[in-house]
Amino acid sequence: MNNSANRSLLVVGSVAFDDIDGPFGHYPQLLGGSASFFSAAAAYFTNKVSIVGVVGNDFPKEHIEYFESRSIDTSGIEHADGKTFLWKGKYSDDLSHRETLDTQLGVFADFQPKLGESHKECELLFLGNIHPSLQVSVLEQANKPAVVAADTMNFWMDCALDELHLMLAKVQTLIINDEEARQLSGEYSLVKAAVKIRAMGPETLVIKRGDAGAMLFYEGGNFFAPALPLEEPRDPTGAGDSFAGGFMGYLASYNGVIDHEAIRTAMIYGSVMASFLVEQFSLDGLRGLDEAMIRERFDLFRELSRFNHE
Amino acid sequence: MNNSANRSLLVVGSVAFDDIDGPFGHYPQLLGGSASFFSAAAAYFTNKVSIVGVVGNDFPKEHIEYFESRSIDTSGIEHADGKTFLWKGKYSDDLSHRETLDTQLGVFADFQPKLGESHKECELLFLGNIHPSLQVSVLEQANKPAVVAADTMNFWMDCALDELHLMLAKVQTLIINDEEARQLSGEYSLVKAAVKIRAMGPETLVIKRGDAGAMLFYEGGNFFAPALPLEEPRDPTGAGDSFAGGFMGYLASYNGVIDHEAIRTAMIYGSVMASFLVEQFSLDGLRGLDEAMIRERFDLFRELSRFNHE
Repeated sequence: MNNSANRSLLVVGSVAFDDIDGPFGHYPQLLGGSASFFSAAAAYFTNKVSIVGVVGNDFPKEHIEYFESRSIDTSGIEHADGKTFLWKGKYSDDLSHRETLDTQLGVFADFQPKLGESHKECELLFLGNIHPSLQVSVLEQANKPAVVAADTMNFWMDCALDELHLMLAKVQTLIINDEEARQLSGEYSLVKAAVKIRAMGPETLVIKRGDAGAMLFYEGGNFFAPALPLEEPRDPTGAGDSFAGGFMGYLASYNGVIDHEAIRTAMIYGSVMASFLVEQFSLDGLRGLDEAMIRERFDLFRELSRFNHE
Repeated sequence: MNNSANRSLLVVGSVAFDDIDGPFGHYPQLLGGSASFFSAAAAYFTNKVSIVGVVGNDFPKEHIEYFESRSIDTSGIEHADGKTFLWKGKYSDDLSHRETLDTQLGVFADFQPKLGESHKECELLFLGNIHPSLQVSVLEQANKPAVVAADTMNFWMDCALDELHLMLAKVQTLIINDEEARQLSGEYSLVKAAVKIRAMGPETLVIKRGDAGAMLFYEGGNFFAPALPLEEPRDPTGAGDSFAGGFMGYLASYNGVIDHEAIRTAMIYGSVMASFLVEQFSLDGLRGLDEAMIRERFDLFRELSRFNHE
C-alpha cells in the first residue's frame, strides 16, 4: 500500500494441500494451509512477509514460485522427506457446514518450527493454528515483536488445554471463530465469552462469525465488521486465515502507533481479503489483486456500514 | 423525538398472549403479538401510532391501558367474543432455536380488519404478519399512505403463496428474516434472494438475521445494521416486530423526504429497539425508556460500526 510502514511480518503455520468436495464439485490437491492463505493476503500490505512452515517432497515448485512472485520470503519453509499435510473436507450444499473427511499430517507431524536470525527480528508475528506448545516455542524464539496474534481451534481445547492456556497468557491478540470462543469460555453469549477469554491473556479478541461478520473486543470497547454480502461464495476454506492476513498485513503497513483505531480498520481489511478469498477455490481469489481493487472493496464496506447520525 | 415530523403510523397485526418456555423459566400469559411489540417500539418516535387488531374477552384491561398510557390509539382494537390469540413456544438453552408448541387462533381466526375513517388516512402503514389477503384488504382500504411496509412468514408461503404474491406486488418495503427470504426466493445466497424478492414487488427489502444483524437491499445499494452484542438476551420473542416498530417509528418521525439515507438510519433505530426488547420478557424491555436512553443506545451502534477510512 502507498506510504506503507512496511513492517516485517512472520507467519508460522501450515502449508498444505486441501481436498475439497462441495456443491461446485470435487477439487483435490488444492494449495491450502493457514500460512499460505495468510501470507497471500498479507503480502498486499507489506513486502516483508515470511513463512515458517514445512512441506513434503510432493509439494510442487510452482506454489513456492507463486509465494516468491508475491515477494513472500519462503526461506523458512522446510522441505522434509515425506508427504505434505493434507486436509480433506466436504461442504454442505449451502456452504454453511463442513465435515472433515480426512487429515493426513505427513511431515507436519514432526514439525518443530525453528526461526532463522532474520525471522527472530520480525516486527509482527502471527501464530497460525498449530499445537500451542509450538506456538509458545516460536514466541520464545522471537525477539519481542511489537504485535503478536494467534489462532487456535477446538482440537487443541480438547487435547492440549493446559498448553493452550500457557500460550494465551503470552499473546496480545487472539483471532478465533464463534464456536471456538464458546468452547474455550464455556459461555454461549459472545459478550460473556469475550470477558472470560480476555481474562486468560489476550488484551484484544477477534471473534469471526463467517458470513455474519467479525467482532472485536478490547478494554472498554467493541467493534463489529460486517461480512460483504456475496452473490456466490464458492469455497470458504481459508477465509479465517485470509482475514487474519489482511488484518495483520494492514497493521504491518500502518503508519503510526498501532492502537484500537488501527485495529478497527484492520478488521475491515481482514474482511475485505476474506471476501475475495471465498469467491474462488484455493487461494485463487487472492491472486491478481492490486491496491485499487482492494481499496474499491474497502469502500464497499464503508458504504455497507455508513449511516447518518441525526 | 425532538423536532419529530410526528406522522401518523398504523399497524395491523396480532394483539396476543405468549406462553414462553426457555432457559430462564416458564412464562405463561405474557402480552405479545406483532402489533403490540411494533406499537410499543414505534410510540417512542411518534405519538400518532394506531393499532388495528382483535382481542377476546379474556384480554386484561391493563394491557389496553398500557397502550393508552403510551399515547397509542387503541380504538381500532376490536373486542370480540372468545379467546385472545395464544402462541406457545419453547426456546433452546442458547435461545438460538425455538419450537412452536401450540397456536390457538381464538378470535383471530375470524379477524377481518376494518379501518375507521381516521385510520384510512394514516401516513405510514405496517402490515404485520397476517394472512396476505387481509394485508391486501387493509391496503385497499387505506388512502395512499406514503410508506407501506409488510412482514410475512413461511406459513403463508406454504398455504397462501398466490395471495402472498398479490400482496408483494403492492408494497414498497418487505421486512422478513433470512429463513423466510430463502424460502420465498428458493435461493440460499441472500444477495440472490434479494434480487428475486425485489423483482416480486418490494423496492426495499430488509432481511433480519437475529443476533447477526439486519441487511437492507434497495436499487443500487445495500446496508448492514449490526446487532448489539448483549451480555444476556432473555427473550427474543417480538424482536422482529420491535425492529419494525423502531424502523417505521423513526421514518414517521423523520423530518424530510424519506429516502435511502433515512431508511439506513431507520435500520439502526430498529436494531436499537430490538436490543432493548430481547433483554427482558414480553415487551417489558420497551417499557420505561426515554429519548435519552434510546439516543445513548443509538450511539453504541455508532461506536460499534465506526472505523477510520485511511
